Order: sequence, then C-alpha cells, then structure tokens
Amino acid sequence: MRSFTFNIPTKVVFGQGVIEKLGKEASKYGKKALLVYGKDSVKKYGTYDKVMDALKGAEIDVVEYSGVKANPVTSHAREGIKIAKEQGIEMVVAVGGGSVLDEAKSIAAGAVVDHDVWDFFDGTAPARKALPILTILTMPATGSEMNNGMVLTNDDTNVKNAAFSPAVYPKASFLDPEVTYTIPVKNTAFAVSDIMSHLLEGYFTTKESFIPIQDGYVEGLVKGVMQAMERVADNPEDFDGRAAIMWCASLAWNGLGNAGVRGANTPSHMLEHPLSALYDVAHGAGLSITTPAWLKAMKNEIPARIEKFAENIMGITEGTQEEKIDNAIAALEAWYKKVGTPTTLAEAGIENFDVDEVVKHALVLCKAWGLKNYDEESLKAIYAMC
Amino acid sequence: MRSFTFNIPTKVVFGQGVIEKLGKEASKYGKKALLVYGKDSVKKYGTYDKVMDALKGAEIDVVEYSGVKANPVTSHAREGIKIAKEQGIEMVVAVGGGSVLDEAKSIAAGAVVDHDVWDFFDGTAPARKALPILTILTMPATGSEMNNGMVLTNDDTNVKNAAFSPAVYPKASFLDPEVTYTIPVKNTAFAVSDIMSHLLEGYFTTKESFIPIQDGYVEGLVKGVMQAMERVADNPEDFDGRAAIMWCASLAWNGLGNAGVRGANTPSHMLEHPLSALYDVAHGAGLSITTPAWLKAMKNEIPARIEKFAENIMGITEGTQEEKIDNAIAALEAWYKKVGTPTTLAEAGIENFDVDEVVKHALVLCKAWGLKNYDEESLKAIYAMC
Repeated sequence: MRSFTFNIPTKVVFGQGVIEKLGKEASKYGKKALLVYGKDSVKKYGTYDKVMDALKGAEIDVVEYSGVKANPVTSHAREGIKIAKEQGIEMVVAVGGGSVLDEAKSIAAGAVVDHDVWDFFDGTAPARKALPILTILTMPATGSEMNNGMVLTNDDTNVKNAAFSPAVYPKASFLDPEVTYTIPVKNTAFAVSDIMSHLLEGYFTTKESFIPIQDGYVEGLVKGVMQAMERVADNPEDFDGRAAIMWCASLAWNGLGNAGVRGANTPSHMLEHPLSALYDVAHGAGLSITTPAWLKAMKNEIPARIEKFAENIMGITEGTQEEKIDNAIAALEAWYKKVGTPTTLAEAGIENFDVDEVVKHALVLCKAWGLKNYDEESLKAIYAMC
Repeated sequence: MRSFTFNIPTKVVFGQGVIEKLGKEASKYGKKALLVYGKDSVKKYGTYDKVMDALKGAEIDVVEYSGVKANPVTSHAREGIKIAKEQGIEMVVAVGGGSVLDEAKSIAAGAVVDHDVWDFFDGTAPARKALPILTILTMPATGSEMNNGMVLTNDDTNVKNAAFSPAVYPKASFLDPEVTYTIPVKNTAFAVSDIMSHLLEGYFTTKESFIPIQDGYVEGLVKGVMQAMERVADNPEDFDGRAAIMWCASLAWNGLGNAGVRGANTPSHMLEHPLSALYDVAHGAGLSITTPAWLKAMKNEIPARIEKFAENIMGITEGTQEEKIDNAIAALEAWYKKVGTPTTLAEAGIENFDVDEVVKHALVLCKAWGLKNYDEESLKAIYAMC
C-alpha cells in the first residue's frame, strides 16, 4: 500500500427530512447566502420550498442564482461570482446534482479572489480558500457532496477540466433519500453506472498485489449498490433502496476506495468523456458502454483483477480464468441492460459515430490524466467494441 | 435506513515514515506538547525517538507523561491533567495503542475544565472542548485514532465507562504500518479479533431489512482483515498485511459500518468485558470466546443475518440454513484457533470461572448499554457455551 492522507471535514447529515436542519447549520456561517440551483425541477418537486423555509426560519437572507447547466460553464460561474461579491454573500448553498454542486464550489472559491475562475481549472492558481459551502443533494452520482473536486467547462474554448482543493469541501451536505424518488428509473441506472465506475476504476487499474481492505470495500459497495438499483427499478419510492444508492454515491468517490491504491486511474471515464461531449448521451450511459469494452480489451493485461471481479462481485466461480472473465463481462452487460442503461453505441442511439474525432478527444484526456498505455490504434480497437 | 450524521474531522496520515510529518502538523497547534505514552516499549522499538525528533525539529517543547496502563485509570489521568494545567500545555501528543490514546483524550478534555475528569464518564458533564490531540498509533485495534470515544476506569470504584464527544476527535493521526512489525503474532490476532467484532456486532444485531451498503462494507472489510491476518501470521514484517490491518482498525470503528444501521449494538463486547475485567485475558482474546458462543445462542433469533455471514464472509453456500449457520460458526472458531486466539475459556487458561460474578458484571453493562434481551438465565446459558 502506498502512503496517503485521508481528511474529509464535511459533515454529512443523512435521512428523511434532514433539510429542515439546514437553517441551524447555515447560521454558523453568516446571515446572507447565495442559493445556487439549476432548473425549475427543484421547485416542482418541493425541495426548493424546503430549503427556503429552512433558511428563512434561520433568518438568513437569500440571493437566488439559478440556471446552472448540466455541464456547468465558466460564463455562468463568473456571473455568480460577480453577484456574490456585489451582494456581500457569506456562504454558498447549492441545491441540485453534481453539476450544481461543482459550479457552486467554483463560485465559492471565485468569490474570495480577484482572478478569473478558470485559473483554478487550468492550473494557474489553486483554490486556497472559499466561502463556506452547504449542499442539498437531489441527484446522487458524482460524490461532489463529500469530496474536494469541481468540474467546469470553459465555454470560450470548450475545454472541460477538474480542479481539486481542500477549500471546496462542503461544510455540510444534506442527503434526504426521499428527494430522489422523482428521479426516473432510467436516470437512476445511469447514476448507478457512474457510481460503480467510481468504485471499480481503481480496483481494475491498481498495481498493488495485496490491498484486501480497499478491494473488500469496492466489492462490498458495488454488490450493494447493484442490489439497491434492482429494488428501485421495482419500486422507485423504495426508501431503503434510494438511501443505499444515495449513501453509496458519496462513499464511492470520497477517496476511501482509492486510499493507498497505487496505480489507480480512470480509463473508462477517459473513454466516456468524448461520447458525452460529442453525442447526446448521459455520462453514466456512456460509462456502461465504455466499461465492458475496456474490460474486453484488458482481458490479457489484467486477468487476475477481472477474475477477482468475476468471483467476488459477479459471483462467477466456475470455469477457467478466461471463462470466468468472459462470463463476468457478459453478466455485467446483461445487468446494465436489465436496469436500463445501454452497453453499445447503437443502444444509446448514437449514429454516424466519428471514431477519429472521438479518439482525438480521448488522446487529449490520456495526456492530461497520465494514461500512458493508450494510442490511436488501441483506442480505436476499444471503441470498435462499443 | 435510519437517519445519521457522519463527520470525522481527523486527518489520517498513513504510510511508511509518516511520523516525520508530525512536527509540521503539531506546529499548527502551538509550541508546547504533553507527550503521553505507556511503557518503555515505545522507546525500545524506536518510535519514541522518531516522535521526539519530529517535535524537536519543529521546535516544540515536550513535557513527557508516561505510565499509562493497559486499562487506563482516572488517578493517572488526573495527574496528567494537573501537569498539563501547571505547564501551560497547548496540545496532547499520544504515542501508543488504544489505552494511551483514550487517556490522552481524557487529559486533553480535562485540561480545559475545572471539574474532575470522571465527570465526563459518568454523564455529569459532557466534554465540550479539549486541547488539540495528535496521535501516533503503535497498536491498531480500538479505532480511537479516528473516532470520538474514550474509555477510562475509575480506580476508586473499579467502574469502566466510555465517553463520546466531537471535541476529542484527534486533529491528526499518524499511522505507520512498520511501527507494528514488532507486535507478536498472537497479540495481532487478538487485535484482529477486536477489529472483526467492531465490524460484525452491528451487522449481526441490526433490525434493518435492507442495508446493502453497510452490509457490503462490513463483509468486504472482515474478509480483507482476515486475509491480512493470515499474511502477517506467515510473515510479521509483511508491509501490506500490516498496513491492511492498521487501516482496517480505523475503518472498523469510525462510524461507517454502523451509519444508519438501526438496532446496532454490542453484545459480544458486553459479554467480554467481565472476562477481561475479572480474569487475565486480553480483550480481543475474550471476544473470540464470546462471539461464537453468542452466535450459537442467537441461531434461532437472527438466522437470516448469520446465514448472510456464512455465505458472504465465510463462503459457506451449501446446505440448509441451519447447516450453513452451524458450519459458519465452526469455521469462525477454526479460523480464530488457526491464527492463535482462543475460542473457549479453557483455551484462554481461565480456571475457577465464577459464572455468578461474571453474570452480575454483565447485567450491569446490559443496563448501561441498553441491551434489553438478556437476563441472568440467558447470560448463564451463553457463558456455558464459552
């Protein structure tokens, strides 16, 4: 195991009705909040009202800032930062999914510096401080509610980058599973695909020979979230199923799965980003396409890791190593299909697939993310299996 | 899943040689530290020197306070508090296992109040603040390095109590697996028995019908730490095995396994405490005696949970439910024996077992811990299987 530091200062407040506790928590950080959200769906399903009631009950002035996009952009973040500075905002309250949380983080960090927000993302200036951030999660998937990452797209250049800083850990995140009842089953399946990928990428790519605690963590959580997904597919208002998915999303990408795991990397995400950037496909749907293809390409590279996945997650213990691997990949594909997330470009409705453009995009990510074992030829071979 | 709040502010610094980072971290909290440790073993194996070098390198004045007992006592804590107050101590640095860490926490909390330290433990006065606490763990087992608990025995009355407070979370804990190479295999097995118990008690006692994430967490970590134990039994200086045990100890009792788990309780610990209090048996050794006996007594109470343990942890999938349960308990006993921790009072060398005295002690704990389903008769029946 390699060395690591684990330190998550975020307070997670989890359970039915927890949004009413927001006011007391927010009061610790001041009297004036910027409320960041996306579209009107938070109003439609009542979450907005609960948040406003909690903040008003604590006599906190609220300045609203809505319109965050699914892939949040610098221009919108800049406007939020301008408002935060002009209005003397003391804290940022984000209500939404990963996109809203990420832009809210960038606003919180941008509001306390003079330079442009993109400087955090292109490596010019790390975020060293930020306004306090509070989040109310409505769409569990990215783990932003319990981690120090934020992703923004520069809409001048169309470059999408991530930035990491201890300053943008939320002070507190409020997770009420009931808020997620209205997420359609299909979109829940996309989210679970993303959550599984967050857990499995490090598991598959590690160079460690013996990391039983991290392996056990990943195996246990992946099996658990798959069971929860099946329950929610049967009954979208199953509290325990929704709760399991919500909590697993936070645990999947908060650093615990990869703590001390040498070599952990994210090839499935690298392969997916061009798909969601160039075609109208959801990130999680893209991951359920790229993950099986990547596994097929890696059969001879990491047979022991895929065999471990077969045995300990997919429950496939019979046959030769190769049979177990093939059967596990097939079982994973069958499971994705069963819960409603695609496993091929065709199933995702992607026509006129431009492999050259996709590979060009992927190669940029390989360089940025330090994925050294991929070239044009090997990437084309993987996409051919999508 | 029931509601919960998860919030661990502790920074965990993990890996080979991390003690040298202690100085920089300690500098954040002042210039004068109380160094709390137990016996000379920390000197014998070099940890003391590493800690002193790190603190002196950061120009921190060190006041030493040694002599913490295996079950730390109020009289020794009081003396430490007196020194901390007289000397104007700004932080407490604990070097040792759970006992040292727990007493150090009580000193840190006691140094900032005027009342007696036992008031924290009998419920008179919760610990609302404390001096900053830094820990260097030499014996992984109790999880004190990443939790908010402390246990102390009142040596006026011989009552042993736990207290919990956010104020006593360590600011930072330094976990170097190499420091644990010198722990004998037998004592490591006792520690692993304790770690497994921390994970499994909530798993067995939960009233939840569907908690796949917490179940997966427990199953994965228990399987992982058992594998690590076997590696360390073969080679006590196996870094990855020692690292897995050390990290698992922290993860086993930091709240993650029981987060949202309704009904989680600690009957094996309740049954064990009288054994270590009245006989010369290590806590972990006592747990490997009481856990199988408790499971045998619970066969008809919680068959589904023990069957899940059989299938997902012990790998026993054949046979009727009753056969799986019996075989799993037998396999657990065989495993304990294999790694060198006892499964019966006789194996632990306990002679002249006074069941009446033990049950009297256990009933006090049942009342204090809210374990309502045990009476004199049922406790005697369990101890008869020990």
